[in-house]
Amino acid sequence: MGQADVHISFDELRSLLRDIFLRNGTSSMVADSLAANCAGCERDGAISHGIFRIPGYMASLATGWVDGKAKPDVNPVSSSFIRIDARNGFAQPALAAGAQAIKTAVESTGIAIVAIRNSHHFSALWPDVEPFAREGLLALAFVNGLANVVPHGGRTPVYGTNPIAFATPVAGGEPLVVDQATSVMANGEVRLHALANSPLPPGTGIDSAGRPSTDPHAILAGGALNTFGGYKGSSIALMVELMAGALTGGQLSFENDFGDCVGAQTPKAGQLLVIIDPSRGGNARYAQRVSHLCSRLIDAGQDRLPGQRRYATRLNAERFGIPISEDNLVRLKTLAA
Amino acid sequence: MGQADVHISFDELRSLLRDIFLRNGTSSMVADSLAANCAGCERDGAISHGIFRIPGYMASLATGWVDGKAKPDVNPVSSSFIRIDARNGFAQPALAAGAQAIKTAVESTGIAIVAIRNSHHFSALWPDVEPFAREGLLALAFVNGLANVVPHGGRTPVYGTNPIAFATPVAGGEPLVVDQATSVMANGEVRLHALANSPLPPGTGIDSAGRPSTDPHAILAGGALNTFGGYKGSSIALMVELMAGALTGGQLSFENDFGDCVGAQTPKAGQLLVIIDPSRGGNARYAQRVSHLCSRLIDAGQDRLPGQRRYATRLNAERFGIPISEDNLVRLKTLAA
Repeated sequence: MGQADVHISFDELRSLLRDIFLRNGTSSMVADSLAANCAGCERDGAISHGIFRIPGYMASLATGWVDGKAKPDVNPVSSSFIRIDARNGFAQPALAAGAQAIKTAVESTGIAIVAIRNSHHFSALWPDVEPFAREGLLALAFVNGLANVVPHGGRTPVYGTNPIAFATPVAGGEPLVVDQATSVMANGEVRLHALANSPLPPGTGIDSAGRPSTDPHAILAGGALNTFGGYKGSSIALMVELMAGALTGGQLSFENDFGDCVGAQTPKAGQLLVIIDPSRGGNARYAQRVSHLCSRLIDAGQDRLPGQRRYATRLNAERFGIPISEDNLVRLKTLAA
Repeated sequence: MGQADVHISFDELRSLLRDIFLRNGTSSMVADSLAANCAGCERDGAISHGIFRIPGYMASLATGWVDGKAKPDVNPVSSSFIRIDARNGFAQPALAAGAQAIKTAVESTGIAIVAIRNSHHFSALWPDVEPFAREGLLALAFVNGLANVVPHGGRTPVYGTNPIAFATPVAGGEPLVVDQATSVMANGEVRLHALANSPLPPGTGIDSAGRPSTDPHAILAGGALNTFGGYKGSSIALMVELMAGALTGGQLSFENDFGDCVGAQTPKAGQLLVIIDPSRGGNARYAQRVSHLCSRLIDAGQDRLPGQRRYATRLNAERFGIPISEDNLVRLKTLAA
């Protein structure tokens, strides 16, 4: 990834990325959404979902695989249930388009279920849930993707890396935010290993012949990742596939077929969110209860809380700027010009 | 567990168990609910949640730790959100008491969120979700419990075995039903190993000093189980603790304190269910889509679908009766008399 020898501010990076998305044919609404998301990942040290992803976004846009100007269709089918058709656009602007409907649902019934279909989610999932926790809400999100994960005991890929994320307010502290693939490893991590030609730990995946493999290139070229945690993790991947793929009316992960869009990388799939107002539960002091739980986790010897490392990296970036190699900065500026 | 040398029908076993619960001071509503549940577990081969649990139920009732006559308080706080206070009774009759409110919520908004608190869940979780799938609904359930699971990297228990279950209709087939602890192993399995004095696989848990242990007795006597799947499984256990414990206003797993109720075994905790009408999602042919996904899992080499082994055992029991050792049958008859 080059040496981190310059530092730029979040606003600078976001603005640069915004120009890149616009130059690649997105609407300004989509450019705003993706630039903030991508700059946020880079700022927080989630580098496999940061500027590293720009070529993938560009390839998907250039081939016409994704519609960078799509106008999401938000359809509240009940006082709690919101269907969003992303119309073959990106998932983040589709979720943003539903913001008012979500707010209305949560205020009126204490819960919003948001079923997004025909959407391309090519980033981390924590940026989708963290803002809800900052509003005092408990949010869960599920995304399916490209079939590159083999079900436990199987030989060919069926699932995407099918991440699951959740975020909750914590009294007197930052929100607790979990974001994890249901595969042993996120696909972005495999790509980083492939770039570095470094082998993966045993049990990571299989090659195209279905044999166990620790070679990131073999896993990316027709092989597949394993699910985390054996058959139990495989069941969690199944849950995500049901919620994000089948329930939303989106594509199942194994139905993605790039066809003529050679080089496209974004998965056309679905996303489901469940957003809950914890004050409707049985205890008005929910956030205090979560804080109590967090203290106990630290007392038990857990070394840090989910999201904590990200916040530390964010704080550093806010103070000193986001570290970026000079090469990468030049590349971004060229793409934005 | 003795030799399986007699067979009794489901109705016979349920009736016997019903008499036992009644003799131990439950109301007839509670006896009906628990007897059907417990007999169903035994019938389906989920023996760690079958008649094996009767002494635990009896001890919790005898010590006054659980109220066998509790009348659940069902409180729909919105058109989708149902709070149930089990009033220190069992969870299954509390869920049953909410049946009409759940039906109304799902019909009106496409989703019901059911937050049960002050409840004792001492059985498998699949019996709670399978019936919803038979009605064409997608159901998820989360339960916290007694602190006997250590967070990843920790040295003392914080979580219960915190199971997660989900069930979905499948076109042309039986519902797909997953039920799994977020610990490496269910606590009932550890108890069965302790009875048999058989060691557990490496990585199962820790002893009371926080050292890795494969001894079921050490794990049960002040030790703890590990979460499944390393830090990712630990995050799923956390999600369950938040949903079932904090959000419902129930106790957190580590807050259970039997106090004077020596011998009591049932955890006083919470349960959260999310029940969704998939026809409100983006595709009216949801159940066909799930069937398509199931076919692909089998084609990929997954040896069987979740729930399949249970259905096979159930079918056998329906044909030939539920196998039970003569000793156990005599014991049950004595307890029921």
